[in-house]
Amino acid sequence: MNDLKKYTLKETPHYKVHGRTQPGVCPVPLFFNGSAVEVNVSGSELWIDIEVSYHVHEMWIGCEINGEFMSRQMLMPGTYSLCLFRGMSPEPVKNVRFTRELQAMTEDEDCCLLVHGFQTDGTFHPVPAKKYTLEFVGDSITSGEGTYGAKEDYDWIPMYMSYSRDYAKMTADALNADAYLISQGGWGVLTGWDNNPNSNIPSRYEQLCGLCQGKKNESLGAFTPYDFSSRKIDALIVNLGTNDASAFEQPAWHDPDTGKAYEQRKNPDGTYQEDDLNHFEEAVISFLKMLRKHNPQAHIIWCYGMLGYYLSAAINDAMHRYTAETGDHNLLFLQLPNTTGETVGSHEHPGEPSHRRAAQVLIEYLQDYFANRK
Amino acid sequence: MNDLKKYTLKETPHYKVHGRTQPGVCPVPLFFNGSAVEVNVSGSELWIDIEVSYHVHEMWIGCEINGEFMSRQMLMPGTYSLCLFRGMSPEPVKNVRFTRELQAMTEDEDCCLLVHGFQTDGTFHPVPAKKYTLEFVGDSITSGEGTYGAKEDYDWIPMYMSYSRDYAKMTADALNADAYLISQGGWGVLTGWDNNPNSNIPSRYEQLCGLCQGKKNESLGAFTPYDFSSRKIDALIVNLGTNDASAFEQPAWHDPDTGKAYEQRKNPDGTYQEDDLNHFEEAVISFLKMLRKHNPQAHIIWCYGMLGYYLSAAINDAMHRYTAETGDHNLLFLQLPNTTGETVGSHEHPGEPSHRRAAQVLIEYLQDYFANRK
Amino acid sequence: MNDLKKYTLKETPHYKVHGRTQPGVCPVPLFFNGSAVEVNVSGSELWIDIEVSYHVHEMWIGCEINGEFMSRQMLMPGTYSLCLFRGMSPEPVKNVRFTRELQAMTEDEDCCLLVHGFQTDGTFHPVPAKKYTLEFVGDSITSGEGTYGAKEDYDWIPMYMSYSRDYAKMTADALNADAYLISQGGWGVLTGWDNNPNSNIPSRYEQLCGLCQGKKNESLGAFTPYDFSSRKIDALIVNLGTNDASAFEQPAWHDPDTGKAYEQRKNPDGTYQEDDLNHFEEAVISFLKMLRKHNPQAHIIWCYGMLGYYLSAAINDAMHRYTAETGDHNLLFLQLPNTTGETVGSHEHPGEPSHRRAAQVLIEYLQDYFANRK
Amino acid sequence: MNDLKKYTLKETPHYKVHGRTQPGVCPVPLFFNGSAVEVNVSGSELWIDIEVSYHVHEMWIGCEINGEFMSRQMLMPGTYSLCLFRGMSPEPVKNVRFTRELQAMTEDEDCCLLVHGFQTDGTFHPVPAKKYTLEFVGDSITSGEGTYGAKEDYDWIPMYMSYSRDYAKMTADALNADAYLISQGGWGVLTGWDNNPNSNIPSRYEQLCGLCQGKKNESLGAFTPYDFSSRKIDALIVNLGTNDASAFEQPAWHDPDTGKAYEQRKNPDGTYQEDDLNHFEEAVISFLKMLRKHNPQAHIIWCYGMLGYYLSAAINDAMHRYTAETGDHNLLFLQLPNTTGETVGSHEHPGEPSHRRAAQVLIEYLQDYFANRK
Repeated sequence: MNDLKKYTLKETPHYKVHGRTQPGVCPVPLFFNGSAVEVNVSGSELWIDIEVSYHVHEMWIGCEINGEFMSRQMLMPGTYSLCLFRGMSPEPVKNVRFTRELQAMTEDEDCCLLVHGFQTDGTFHPVPAKKYTLEFVGDSITSGEGTYGAKEDYDWIPMYMSYSRDYAKMTADALNADAYLISQGGWGVLTGWDNNPNSNIPSRYEQLCGLCQGKKNESLGAFTPYDFSSRKIDALIVNLGTNDASAFEQPAWHDPDTGKAYEQRKNPDGTYQEDDLNHFEEAVISFLKMLRKHNPQAHIIWCYGMLGYYLSAAINDAMHRYTAETGDHNLLFLQLPNTTGETVGSHEHPGEPSHRRAAQVLIEYLQDYFANRK
Repeated sequence: MNDLKKYTLKETPHYKVHGRTQPGVCPVPLFFNGSAVEVNVSGSELWIDIEVSYHVHEMWIGCEINGEFMSRQMLMPGTYSLCLFRGMSPEPVKNVRFTRELQAMTEDEDCCLLVHGFQTDGTFHPVPAKKYTLEFVGDSITSGEGTYGAKEDYDWIPMYMSYSRDYAKMTADALNADAYLISQGGWGVLTGWDNNPNSNIPSRYEQLCGLCQGKKNESLGAFTPYDFSSRKIDALIVNLGTNDASAFEQPAWHDPDTGKAYEQRKNPDGTYQEDDLNHFEEAVISFLKMLRKHNPQAHIIWCYGMLGYYLSAAINDAMHRYTAETGDHNLLFLQLPNTTGETVGSHEHPGEPSHRRAAQVLIEYLQDYFANRK
Repeated sequence: MNDLKKYTLKETPHYKVHGRTQPGVCPVPLFFNGSAVEVNVSGSELWIDIEVSYHVHEMWIGCEINGEFMSRQMLMPGTYSLCLFRGMSPEPVKNVRFTRELQAMTEDEDCCLLVHGFQTDGTFHPVPAKKYTLEFVGDSITSGEGTYGAKEDYDWIPMYMSYSRDYAKMTADALNADAYLISQGGWGVLTGWDNNPNSNIPSRYEQLCGLCQGKKNESLGAFTPYDFSSRKIDALIVNLGTNDASAFEQPAWHDPDTGKAYEQRKNPDGTYQEDDLNHFEEAVISFLKMLRKHNPQAHIIWCYGMLGYYLSAAINDAMHRYTAETGDHNLLFLQLPNTTGETVGSHEHPGEPSHRRAAQVLIEYLQDYFANRK
Repeated sequence: MNDLKKYTLKETPHYKVHGRTQPGVCPVPLFFNGSAVEVNVSGSELWIDIEVSYHVHEMWIGCEINGEFMSRQMLMPGTYSLCLFRGMSPEPVKNVRFTRELQAMTEDEDCCLLVHGFQTDGTFHPVPAKKYTLEFVGDSITSGEGTYGAKEDYDWIPMYMSYSRDYAKMTADALNADAYLISQGGWGVLTGWDNNPNSNIPSRYEQLCGLCQGKKNESLGAFTPYDFSSRKIDALIVNLGTNDASAFEQPAWHDPDTGKAYEQRKNPDGTYQEDDLNHFEEAVISFLKMLRKHNPQAHIIWCYGMLGYYLSAAINDAMHRYTAETGDHNLLFLQLPNTTGETVGSHEHPGEPSHRRAAQVLIEYLQDYFANRK
């Protein structure tokens, strides 16, 4: 190692945090997949000082240098330093982005990744904001589940999730945009895939990161109300409904505490029961109001279809009712191409080719939208 | 020319007519783009005997041999023979399809293409039906406008329309399906692109071919009620709404006879006026009922998006209202990827790459649908 | 038809002839595939006056408007007019190229296509030369055999040959170059595919068009020495050797007049006999000298491989010997990707995808060469 | 960590080593990029015990699970364990391949990667040999230099080299083949890129791994004669000549010990000096003899072109002379498509798209060769 100077984040003159965060916090927790610390730095060598913990599900991160994928790896628990580059020509300024690959983990209360600072023989330079700001709200699709791994792999493990091959990253890169992600595999708008009514994204949307647990995360401020005024979203992409559709195919979920059963039901002819569908639609409407409240200027795009078109009509109807009720027309329903046997990845989830196709539809729509926006 | 034997269609032992037609009629009129006569024939040489007429817009046809594109050409008026192949090994049976490239022309009352028969030194063999039967109902997109011609070409002429590069053909080929087309550039569900209420497809859907004019076409039976029992559609693809969206951007249309003005209006904030939107939705609902009446078993897919997503919400709402009213769930709204600067063709219409992308979404959906259909 | 004015070529103020020709001749014969007449013309309508004859193999042509493929069709014998466009906006100048699809036919002495003139209501405008000038010298590959037709089609007929899907066209278009073609299916450098020593391209290279027969073609000047000073070739692409390799696999060819046998032989171990290989190499060397004599400035690229790499070593050795003998280094051997089961077309020849891959290699090489040329 | 059992390689019932190695050695050194240890193992968790050292250039490795890329990371020096997977369903057998990404490093005598063993709660299963065995002999191209990193990155560092995006891997995967690699950036057949005559691959080919230095590597057997009888190569791909061409563009190299100058020279007209070219050709001939001696049955393919076609003629001539001298025809010269501005990677070397195009040519050739091999 050369003569490296150690910087806590507080001491780091310039750095940028991606994803929901509290400004100026040190160390900075990276809560979601896509959450990242980015620097522009000269020097021959750069290390990042991190703290990793988890009980069940191990942490994965990726690193890009000058916008290109360089590494992806599993992280062991502990507080230690990782070398991000070494042996480079000292003068040029390198752009380095250290990114969490793993979604927030509601099922592992210890799961957490903190960035404490850097070590380098170079100097830090400003990291400008991108032209646009996007937020992606979703489920396992947005968590990139299936973007790594073989088609025959069926485990539900961190290794198969990512930001590096996620449609959200592809979209943000193509549009020169910063991206915020908030997503959780198996969750929906009204219920999770198994009819569990607690697994609904809206109930957590207003917290900094409601999709984790435990004292450690609490102490990091995860459950505090998120300060939406800290960023201004240009386009808000919701990709939810897939698990709400699954719920109709599953048996009832029984609350272990109350014994109460929850179930979305189908009619004998295979169609969805009207009142259950209505509960779903009301959840959509209610969530749209919440999204609008916190993102008054955002163009809301409700995406759907990467794992089937089942609830297209219901989502549309809910959006229509929302518009009728509120007069808000600044939103669009956008179908994304369904995943096929050729584009599927591991765990029966969309693979990278499916994410690429979906991103293409979204990119083209947003390019057009931004070009025509007054 | 070798010793060729002349066959009227009546005398032709085996042939297949594509597109709406009256069984056994001779000569057979090819009314729509995609309408075709197909034969399996041995021999070294094949000619087709045709009759062509038009006043303004010339006829175009294409010819495929053994499923491969071989020729595309403009046809002059008259009654004459065209050589489709010659100099081939006599023994093998060749599949030959002679296809109209040009949509039915409402604006040219003389426009007509008749097939009288064939001349060959070979023998005819049965032409089996394909596995599935599709119907495509649409506007200029389904008429393939823009699939030929340079991006800087802005004329509205037959040369730029086609079946050979149409998403309908791509879809039918990929699914091993027979395809019926009925489409007209500039027309919509409620009105045409210019608010003309006569330019609505539903008003013509029940005729054999309501999208043409004149005594000649009348004598060919074009305006008689179509016998829907003559074919059983597996999937009915509607691709309409694009011109209904245009109408909102255009000034009122005045009926030259009555002086009455027709106009779809926008609010000052750029949104669509509610009652006008409702008229559109009612037209969609009413058309869905008509389609269902004549195609009780067909899976109806309403496609939309190749030239903008403007009326997505309204189409969806209309479909939802239709389902609520009728209990009919056998239909789906499916967005097709919008056309971009890279995929656009002539006359600002979708080019071949756009048709290919749209077809891919449709193909994958239908493959899935057919695989899961009971 | 509108009020069209008739122009013989002599009277046509501006037009451009593609392919080998005699300047100013009227009517102009189009001898090779790729030979064409091109005009820039305003007006609503354009007809071309042509004369077609053949005994066995029918003529095929293609037409491009504003650089886009518009039609491809078989032509019957006779003297008549073809409409190339009609109904267009009169003001804009349209670029129209009428191109022979069929190679020169050594086996059909009557085969001939003449352009007499045009009819239009517009006016003619100059057609500038392209930035570069290329010549392609080849066999069936350069004649585009296999670029049309189904994989199961094995006839040797004009319908399956083309310029419109030929690597020569793709290369010329991408480089903004004019292209001269001279090619003949089955021919080689030393012999044809069947050991026939008369089927060698060098023996015909110096004639205007030595690859046809008969009095008619003679009267059109086909057999007169070609005036190489009439064009200056930037890059000369030779794509020969494929049939010379076939000859080694075929039985001897017996001259019907002298009874003499000609044969390229293999050793028992499957390698080529040294002296026969040497005859081939000497033919290559000799041909290179001829090409250089007539094209002193041309960069010569000997392409090979689209139907197997068999004679790669021999061609290279011959080129090496040529350079050693002459000191001429202005040439390169360039392998083109072999045709596979996925890229093959009809008659076991390279299909369009194979031509596209080959063109890509050539395009990239020439872009690089032209960029670095002093 | 679960109850994991620790296995030295000697104790590991089944494992497979990729790349040149001594059978049964424990720990096993991975000398080249592409060198790897592969296991089929059940269990929920797998760790690998490794030893890493280097002075200047850090080690990089990649890990594939069930044939899919999972991680790529920089390794710090030391003896430690890396977790390759955890949390998986215990029953299924997972295929895991731990692969060195970094070429053998002649410039860093301490650079070394050893695999000591594994830790797992599963059991090991046999790893079968692949259908074919390939050897790739090359320079920086085969070392994958440029396959990672941005186009503007010009450092010569391990991070930008790989096996994971190398044409050798792509070729081996597509053909279901095991691959041996031996390559060194900057080296040639006769000299290195800078005229240094020591930087020639043939001088090191016969050692187990002659492309490293130092006592540690010596103790690992790197400099012992390689036992070529330990594997039978089906096809041997040589991709050399690129640095020999560079040498002609560089000033003389002066031996620091003797002061002697070495230089490949060009003539004033830009062509290569004949005697220098002959030295290169003799080096090629001599190397071919060495390759044949050790791989009597191997089909030798000399590839060239990914960074320019400069020495095509000389390589061909040398191959021709080799065949004339030895009677050995079991070899082929194969050009690979040159790298373009679109396919270039970091450090002006072929990027992944260039490797993919090159691999495609090689794959298709070898598929054809293997299909026709007696």
